[in-house]
Amino acid sequence: MESFVYNIPTKIAFGKNQIQMLPELIKEYGNKILLLYGGGSIKKIGLYDEAIRLLKDNDIKYTELAGVEPNPQANTVRRGVEICKAEGIEVLVPIGGGSTIDCAKAIAVGAYYDGDPWDIVKNNKLITKALPIVSVLTVAATGSEMDASAVISNDEVGDKAEIYSELVYPKASILDPTYTYSVPAYHTAAGVADIMSHVFEYYFNQDKVLDIQRGMMNNVLKVCAKYGPIAVEQPDNEEARANLMWAASWAINGFIAGGTMSSWPCHAIEYQLTNHYKTTHGHGMAIIEIAWMKHILNEKTLPAFLEYGKEVFGVWGEGLDTAGDIIEMTKQLYERMGLSMTLRSIGATDKNDIPVMAKQAVEEFGLDYGGSLSLTIKDVEQIYESCF
Amino acid sequence: MESFVYNIPTKIAFGKNQIQMLPELIKEYGNKILLLYGGGSIKKIGLYDEAIRLLKDNDIKYTELAGVEPNPQANTVRRGVEICKAEGIEVLVPIGGGSTIDCAKAIAVGAYYDGDPWDIVKNNKLITKALPIVSVLTVAATGSEMDASAVISNDEVGDKAEIYSELVYPKASILDPTYTYSVPAYHTAAGVADIMSHVFEYYFNQDKVLDIQRGMMNNVLKVCAKYGPIAVEQPDNEEARANLMWAASWAINGFIAGGTMSSWPCHAIEYQLTNHYKTTHGHGMAIIEIAWMKHILNEKTLPAFLEYGKEVFGVWGEGLDTAGDIIEMTKQLYERMGLSMTLRSIGATDKNDIPVMAKQAVEEFGLDYGGSLSLTIKDVEQIYESCF
Repeated sequence: MESFVYNIPTKIAFGKNQIQMLPELIKEYGNKILLLYGGGSIKKIGLYDEAIRLLKDNDIKYTELAGVEPNPQANTVRRGVEICKAEGIEVLVPIGGGSTIDCAKAIAVGAYYDGDPWDIVKNNKLITKALPIVSVLTVAATGSEMDASAVISNDEVGDKAEIYSELVYPKASILDPTYTYSVPAYHTAAGVADIMSHVFEYYFNQDKVLDIQRGMMNNVLKVCAKYGPIAVEQPDNEEARANLMWAASWAINGFIAGGTMSSWPCHAIEYQLTNHYKTTHGHGMAIIEIAWMKHILNEKTLPAFLEYGKEVFGVWGEGLDTAGDIIEMTKQLYERMGLSMTLRSIGATDKNDIPVMAKQAVEEFGLDYGGSLSLTIKDVEQIYESCF
Repeated sequence: MESFVYNIPTKIAFGKNQIQMLPELIKEYGNKILLLYGGGSIKKIGLYDEAIRLLKDNDIKYTELAGVEPNPQANTVRRGVEICKAEGIEVLVPIGGGSTIDCAKAIAVGAYYDGDPWDIVKNNKLITKALPIVSVLTVAATGSEMDASAVISNDEVGDKAEIYSELVYPKASILDPTYTYSVPAYHTAAGVADIMSHVFEYYFNQDKVLDIQRGMMNNVLKVCAKYGPIAVEQPDNEEARANLMWAASWAINGFIAGGTMSSWPCHAIEYQLTNHYKTTHGHGMAIIEIAWMKHILNEKTLPAFLEYGKEVFGVWGEGLDTAGDIIEMTKQLYERMGLSMTLRSIGATDKNDIPVMAKQAVEEFGLDYGGSLSLTIKDVEQIYESCF
């Protein structure tokens, strides 16, 4: 059993109308905020107006940074950092999904760095301090509202990099499941696949973890399998939305990872799809996940597959065939939520992309690390090939 | 579905030899500490010497407060507060079980109060600020290492009261399961019953909670049923000790309580036993728990009992008889760990104590609040009676 450090300092205000806590949560850290959001969906659902009213009623000074991209760009981070420095911003308040919160995280550390914020994204060792973040979540998927990482793209140079620092855990996040009612079926489904993928990255390795961590992994998967299709079919089902929202946070906030290791192979493999075909991340994850599961299924990983089948789908059985059925049930779950399951269906046309993507995935993420789920370039090529 | 605020800021260093992190964890908050411990068991297992060596090697100035009682006394809190004020203590470092940590919590808030610390224990509204606490845990039971409460006794006036404040969450706690190897079988068993009781207080009410909260409740109970007897029989079984230690924290740190309500009836009923007969709290809990389960079992609570049986003991079945069997299995679990199951066996001799204890329990804790698990004085009398 490996040692670990558990440190999840984010305070969560969960439930309907918890937006009323926004002023109080902000004021613990300051009174001058940068309000970040994306394309304006928060205006459609009335959340923008309500937030502005609360800020005004409580004399909180705000500057807006609108138009944060679905894959937040280095240039947007640069703009945010400039505003913070020019106006002495004290708290960052992203309202939106993972992208908006990720952008805020990069701005938070960029504000304490003298050079180009992109440098700090590429080299996390330059991080020294971060502005506090109070987020309001509107999509259940990435877990950024309660985790320590952020992914920033730099399309100008065709690059993408991750910030990981305990300094960027949001100080507080408001999770009101009713804000996710307007998330379209497709993005709801992709979000569910994304949540499940955060668990799968740890689930099949042979590290011994504590039972309640393992139990949490099963719980998160169970919630996704049970409520994912319901949320897709009944967008305003509060029970489904609430359960998915809380599960999303716990899939990736660090709790299940304690004492275990993963090179996040499926994410490495999927990131290439997003780069090449602008795939929606969660959709790409669903496709890769199934192909990867088939690839790694063997006598060693079998017990984990059987456990997954029993806990999540109620399947009792032995042997590789049963495990194959369990993988098929996972595929059917994704399909039932409306996700297509081939790379062609998401824009891939040229099989010549495969060797390039496989090499990049393995080398950049060290997938051939030699552990129980190590993957060579050839393995990854086979995975892409099998779901093309 | 009720709203809730989740706020568990404690950082946990979990695993063998994590004591090496002690200086780093302390220095984040200061350099002058008050070291608290109980009767000296930490000297027997070598933990005291190791801690002192680490403090000295890292130039951390320490004052000792030894002899913290199993039910920490107001007078000990007073002594601690005096030391803090006189010496400008910056961090409290309790090494021990829940009592030592509870004592530190009371001192932490008492240090910022001008009057008698007992006032603040009795009236939590007087709490304004708290010294930071970095704890080292040696018993898996109360969960004080990761929660916001502390129970202090005042034997001089025959009273006992609780501090509840988010300010007293330890900033960090070191959880090394090997420190619990020396906990005697009896206290291990009582600790397991205590952990389970923290879940049972929420488990049978009819509040709808999120699935991963419910899953966590089941996980904690499963860990206790699986590893409790192992830890009693094989005191140095690392897997058992580690699982119990982490489960203890999650039983009571606030995670499972989000959005649900409880008047903690079994604790209210047990506290009277500790007051009257100096019962070991966890042992008293085991006895009361079984009597209370039998009392509250009805068609409304039945589904929760059946779920508990299925998840924890693998019992599939329907009806009140099955639920009765499940309660019996819980009793047998306690007995297998060596706990006797009658009040007589823990020192009760006079049935005339019952009306006094029942009245006190109901009135002090508001057990007759009118909710689904409301208990009248008569109910509580029956509960005591049935396990006398």
